[in-house]
Amino acid sequence: MNSRPAPPTGPAYRRLSVAERRGQLITTAQRLFAHRPPEDVSLDDVAQAAGVSRPLVYRYFPGGKQQLYEAALRGAAEDLTLCFAEPAQGPPTERLARVLDRYLAFVTEHREGFTALLKGGSVVETSRTSAIVDQVRRAAAGQILHHLRASDPGPRLLMAVRTWITAVEAASLIWLDDGRQPPAGQLRDWLVDHCVSLLAVTATHDRETAAVLERLTGLETPDGRVRRLVDGLAPLLAAAPPAAS
Amino acid sequence: MNSRPAPPTGPAYRRLSVAERRGQLITTAQRLFAHRPPEDVSLDDVAQAAGVSRPLVYRYFPGGKQQLYEAALRGAAEDLTLCFAEPAQGPPTERLARVLDRYLAFVTEHREGFTALLKGGSVVETSRTSAIVDQVRRAAAGQILHHLRASDPGPRLLMAVRTWITAVEAASLIWLDDGRQPPAGQLRDWLVDHCVSLLAVTATHDRETAAVLERLTGLETPDGRVRRLVDGLAPLLAAAPPAAS
Repeated sequence: MNSRPAPPTGPAYRRLSVAERRGQLITTAQRLFAHRPPEDVSLDDVAQAAGVSRPLVYRYFPGGKQQLYEAALRGAAEDLTLCFAEPAQGPPTERLARVLDRYLAFVTEHREGFTALLKGGSVVETSRTSAIVDQVRRAAAGQILHHLRASDPGPRLLMAVRTWITAVEAASLIWLDDGRQPPAGQLRDWLVDHCVSLLAVTATHDRETAAVLERLTGLETPDGRVRRLVDGLAPLLAAAPPAAS
Repeated sequence: MNSRPAPPTGPAYRRLSVAERRGQLITTAQRLFAHRPPEDVSLDDVAQAAGVSRPLVYRYFPGGKQQLYEAALRGAAEDLTLCFAEPAQGPPTERLARVLDRYLAFVTEHREGFTALLKGGSVVETSRTSAIVDQVRRAAAGQILHHLRASDPGPRLLMAVRTWITAVEAASLIWLDDGRQPPAGQLRDWLVDHCVSLLAVTATHDRETAAVLERLTGLETPDGRVRRLVDGLAPLLAAAPPAAS
């Protein structure tokens, strides 16, 4: 082994551990999948971008591109799930706004991959990739229910939460398609208002949701997001047809 | 040819035209795909259920199961799009309720196929099947915009409409998963209320949506759905934190 020529010096050429090399390949793949549709990214592209040989990529991912794609997706799913963590303190709508800011930043950073994955019909989509996406949705629902302090939610509350999560996904896809208009901050405000109103509408059908909503609004501040939404809605609600007397 | 034994008599054995036979095979396939996941339905199953030979199915669908699946899907998509048609008369929320009743009946009738298709990761999913689904969504959005009298909608109104359509899909999937609880009528009422509230929330951010909403509420009746929603929301809105003075 001593007869081997000394490797070039510098951090780029130091020998990586197995875990480091795996992590490097996954990060490289994520970058490529984030900005190009999966069908336009080859294993050669990943090898070249990582500065390694194609056989080395195969050594780490014998299943080839599909395996690498799934590893990249799993890593991105973990990153996204971390975005959801938020201390259960302060006005709930402000907590939600912060999570949505991080979510929209993630979506922007991974836009091609996010779009390809969620639009369906992608060549790399399998029941395994769908399961990874479902897991992220479940994590999002779990976080929201944690903030709602509803660990064992009834079906109506759960449906409201899960429906809102899908609405956020759909709005994000449309937003990316439309060149990210309106600005992220406006989309975030609309999504927060949407969440509040969906809970309010559900509360008119369901006692548990009504109790949850009452507790949450008690944590909001005067002149906060809920107050502004209620004030904004007031003239619209006043325009509703009067009750027949 | 005259030496062939006479076919059994009766309507089931009359010779079908090409169009009739094709239609029969598609309808049979739809029935099977509706109640079993696509991967559990073979061409033999379709041939047997239709009372024909496997080679005959192949004569009409040389691309095999995938081609038959796509034809079945296309037919179902056309049926579903017909459900959306509704005269632009009377209270808008009543029109929407009638469309949703037909939609939920369709979803119930095609539950396995609907779930497999929209959950993603199905073995028969391709960019072509996704395009068919997208076309149904566009048709739904077109119908809603027709009733909103917004032929050239701005981005905020369009995003609200498209987001609500996805929310309906998501809620329908959850509803099927949950053994269709709550009853269809309650789900329909919640979806109508969701639509009204999403338009109202969007109206607080967007003048076009505010104008559309004002025109729509003018068509509602006293004691109608909008009045009941506003009355139901009133105590919840009153519980919002007071504005700081």
